[in-house]
Amino acid sequence: MSAPQDTGSTAAEREDAPGHWKPHFPEYEQVVRDTFAEQPAMAHIGATLGLVEPGLVEIHLPCTPQVMQQYDAVHGGVIGMIADSACGFAALTIAPRGTIGVTVEYKINLLAPAIGEELLARGRLIRPGTTLTIASADVYVFKERRTRHVATALETLIRLQ
Amino acid sequence: MSAPQDTGSTAAEREDAPGHWKPHFPEYEQVVRDTFAEQPAMAHIGATLGLVEPGLVEIHLPCTPQVMQQYDAVHGGVIGMIADSACGFAALTIAPRGTIGVTVEYKINLLAPAIGEELLARGRLIRPGTTLTIASADVYVFKERRTRHVATALETLIRLQ
Amino acid sequence: MSAPQDTGSTAAEREDAPGHWKPHFPEYEQVVRDTFAEQPAMAHIGATLGLVEPGLVEIHLPCTPQVMQQYDAVHGGVIGMIADSACGFAALTIAPRGTIGVTVEYKINLLAPAIGEELLARGRLIRPGTTLTIASADVYVFKERRTRHVATALETLIRLQ
Amino acid sequence: MSAPQDTGSTAAEREDAPGHWKPHFPEYEQVVRDTFAEQPAMAHIGATLGLVEPGLVEIHLPCTPQVMQQYDAVHGGVIGMIADSACGFAALTIAPRGTIGVTVEYKINLLAPAIGEELLARGRLIRPGTTLTIASADVYVFKERRTRHVATALETLIRLQ
Repeated sequence: MSAPQDTGSTAAEREDAPGHWKPHFPEYEQVVRDTFAEQPAMAHIGATLGLVEPGLVEIHLPCTPQVMQQYDAVHGGVIGMIADSACGFAALTIAPRGTIGVTVEYKINLLAPAIGEELLARGRLIRPGTTLTIASADVYVFKERRTRHVATALETLIRLQ
Repeated sequence: MSAPQDTGSTAAEREDAPGHWKPHFPEYEQVVRDTFAEQPAMAHIGATLGLVEPGLVEIHLPCTPQVMQQYDAVHGGVIGMIADSACGFAALTIAPRGTIGVTVEYKINLLAPAIGEELLARGRLIRPGTTLTIASADVYVFKERRTRHVATALETLIRLQ
Repeated sequence: MSAPQDTGSTAAEREDAPGHWKPHFPEYEQVVRDTFAEQPAMAHIGATLGLVEPGLVEIHLPCTPQVMQQYDAVHGGVIGMIADSACGFAALTIAPRGTIGVTVEYKINLLAPAIGEELLARGRLIRPGTTLTIASADVYVFKERRTRHVATALETLIRLQ
Repeated sequence: MSAPQDTGSTAAEREDAPGHWKPHFPEYEQVVRDTFAEQPAMAHIGATLGLVEPGLVEIHLPCTPQVMQQYDAVHGGVIGMIADSACGFAALTIAPRGTIGVTVEYKINLLAPAIGEELLARGRLIRPGTTLTIASADVYVFKERRTRHVATALETLIRLQ
């Protein structure tokens, strides 16, 4: 039952170190930016896309009142939204043309209150495969030029045509 | 290391069956509704509070364009938001006066595309304790008078003064 | 990114209520029992298989010293082992002939110390699909004729030939 | 509801980078080794303790038949056991004297089949706090002088006297 599956990563994909991921086609970044732009929910909360590299994506979110819960902190569910998206777009950077990765599940730990001016969610590939891809995300808050780690997430995605 | 802690539930709280949870004070429902109303993020996505009972809370979310991602389905992160909130408010129904439960972590499985007219997130207490409370949530989509189970979540909360 | 995938369940599989799951062939129970018997790790910790029904499997574990950690309680990792197995065998009850479900990931909450004479892990299907299956497990300890809920888990499996 | 709690880490503990964690007393390593030795379940599966540093612990497990499931791979639940323990002992390296961290919950992704001669689980602190501590673990298999990343886990612990 509990034999982990071979997720089918190729030799080129198998390196753990960031920076070793190989996109399947050169314009991968444009595909990521176009796909992000098509998601109304990301725009609705005010999220924007920052850095896009093979296996690494950053999403920025200003801490506006509309994303708050009652403690002047960003709502934990909103933090989950940008963490989930950062994982998904990190997976998309190395997806074959015409495929997408959709979220199967994610788990997020909220580490500290997200009180500040802006959030940064950084998504990274952990292991890509032909069917399933595993990614993680860390979320930081910037407040008065200081950075605090506010959340960490672990996500599974499935590749669909 | 791995000894699960005694979460300190009282005898009255220890029943697993829904309906056995005992609120600490009679106006628990009003506290839940007031607290929900203070969360800008919930209003921003269009979520409203439905049923509130001891250990059980329902949140409704119309499937408007603003909560979509690119497939006419509600964004998985938005589903996480209402699942997280449903767990948190389920915990609040039996919290002592003046305390709140804040999310430590949650894990959510997305089971099917959330395509339809409205979502319902139903949060339930699994185990309350003096420090930590465990809750779960199930999310359903309604489409043309049919119901589909689209997500299930498991969450840990900590009680703060 | 965050569109939950259609896990491809057939109409027959789509009922949520326990008892509605349909095995693919009549001798499903024997396949489950034979597969369990082939796992040295289950025997090594002393686990045995109890009830096997479509979508529902129970595993028993006596609380012997060999599965303890230092507090006279069963090790949290051992609780995870039987919860993971209960999910996997629940998935196997309705798997097509010749396929297996292997664990992609699981999350477990330990709710109370597992101190007593015996543990019971009850695994249930939540949603089967052609590729991915979601299952959950609850673990109980029996002590002096009383039952206590000690853990709850949520798991994703992938079907392999 | 979803305000992440301030986990109360002191300034000294707040650095994210490994190597910055400060033990509360000099003989922290001996406490970790003594505590590990008191856990029958770890000995029963053949696990031994390797490196112990502030915020970092390694556990070794030979791939013997007794920890296998039916595919010549180590059982996913056993991988969860050593990942859970590695997180717990990483937390113990910086725990105040006389306190222990017990597992609240963990989530583990199995990335590839654990087939080889030996497993290594490396646990790391992510964020310590006065009540809750978050840690992660990565598990690797060694086979014919090659290393493969087979699992990654994320865990929450609570500090008890």
